[in-house]
Amino acid sequence: MTNPTAAILIIGNEILSGRTQDVNVNFLAKRLAVRGIQLQEVRVIPDVPHRIISAVNELRASYDELFTTGGIGPTHDDITSECVAAAFGVPWEPHAETFTMMEKAMAPGAFNAARQRMATMPRGAVPIPNSISMAPGFSIANVHVMAGVPRIMQSMYEALEPSLPKGTPIAMRAVHGMGIMEGAIAAGLSAIQDKYPPVDLGSYPFRREAAGGVAIVAKGTDPALLEKAIAEATQLIASHGIDPIQGEPV
Amino acid sequence: MTNPTAAILIIGNEILSGRTQDVNVNFLAKRLAVRGIQLQEVRVIPDVPHRIISAVNELRASYDELFTTGGIGPTHDDITSECVAAAFGVPWEPHAETFTMMEKAMAPGAFNAARQRMATMPRGAVPIPNSISMAPGFSIANVHVMAGVPRIMQSMYEALEPSLPKGTPIAMRAVHGMGIMEGAIAAGLSAIQDKYPPVDLGSYPFRREAAGGVAIVAKGTDPALLEKAIAEATQLIASHGIDPIQGEPV
Repeated sequence: MTNPTAAILIIGNEILSGRTQDVNVNFLAKRLAVRGIQLQEVRVIPDVPHRIISAVNELRASYDELFTTGGIGPTHDDITSECVAAAFGVPWEPHAETFTMMEKAMAPGAFNAARQRMATMPRGAVPIPNSISMAPGFSIANVHVMAGVPRIMQSMYEALEPSLPKGTPIAMRAVHGMGIMEGAIAAGLSAIQDKYPPVDLGSYPFRREAAGGVAIVAKGTDPALLEKAIAEATQLIASHGIDPIQGEPV
Repeated sequence: MTNPTAAILIIGNEILSGRTQDVNVNFLAKRLAVRGIQLQEVRVIPDVPHRIISAVNELRASYDELFTTGGIGPTHDDITSECVAAAFGVPWEPHAETFTMMEKAMAPGAFNAARQRMATMPRGAVPIPNSISMAPGFSIANVHVMAGVPRIMQSMYEALEPSLPKGTPIAMRAVHGMGIMEGAIAAGLSAIQDKYPPVDLGSYPFRREAAGGVAIVAKGTDPALLEKAIAEATQLIASHGIDPIQGEPV
């Protein structure tokens, strides 16, 4: 796999407290797969400076791209931006163009100290605009700092995507066997995995309203190999007297 | 904060590929808060042995408790159990009681090599039963290895919970201001946070069908302090001509 690699760093007490169900990982995971970027790690950490600084430095060194979400608003708990500056060892300073843009757009006096923080970035950062709020995210080197609010994050990702590296899209194929047990097909699946090493073959029990079964999922950058692996998994399911269901079951 | 600390390690290609939306973190986060265990980190990593081994060793050394989810089924991609044994440097061997229990419960011949893997654990592991499937999770020292399928994981957590350490429950109080902007109240909020250092005061923009606003959330182990901080946040919102909404808005 020569695709670029990536990690996501979620900075958010609200995820760790259980107050908020994260949905940003799932959005980014799907989009990165289409872009051919291999998501290899996700971390969720609290709004604590030394935790943010060390995680940013560890992850930006380990992966080609690092995406952060959360902590870039105007309130006291929004400390991602200055922590990224500290991680890079560069000054955290007003971004002239963003500062002017935000100041002009607001009523006199409304661009207060708290809002000015949203126009303050690590030196060298490139803003990531979004269509929902005035305040941008930013990229610095391979670190992409985005909002935690899902629709703002998604808008920032749309703006950012064209500047990201591209790999071979990571495709997925699935076949399902209703009523089958993983333990019954495990040996057969393992043999298929051994036959197609570049395919990442996974097995996932699932449940629907009435019944459950196993989903066999093949993932990789060579669609022809995925088809072959799934064809064999389909035969494996059929050999147990079960009608295989291609794609996603209802 | 003298509460016990915890991390969650999610072992799951299906989360990193975007195929599956994780819901285990949110369940565990809420339950751990009630138990008074401070969730301080979550990681999601792929089904790769050296990644699992190093993450288990790093996280079990850094936190009082480590909960893993995923990778304990019978198929080739279920490698969590042997990796945990490797992380602890102990043999991975049949757990006699579990082995006998599973063998007896199955039809002759059905307890095949794949299923026997689910009765194989690191030496010294204590099984975590569940009410849905025969195959247990297990605890070894401060590491609790659970299924990835949410309802099985939840059943395992119910069985495990009484043996976990207890801290002072982490409570939450919230007040909402519809139509208010974070930037308008940031300075006031920061002053409230400074006044109540043991309270973890967060500010979260939100949207409902018709309108949006800001949620002010106070979290901590002293309910009386939470009430005071939220009372002040309520006044802050009201001072901007907005009717504060206690608890969760509809």
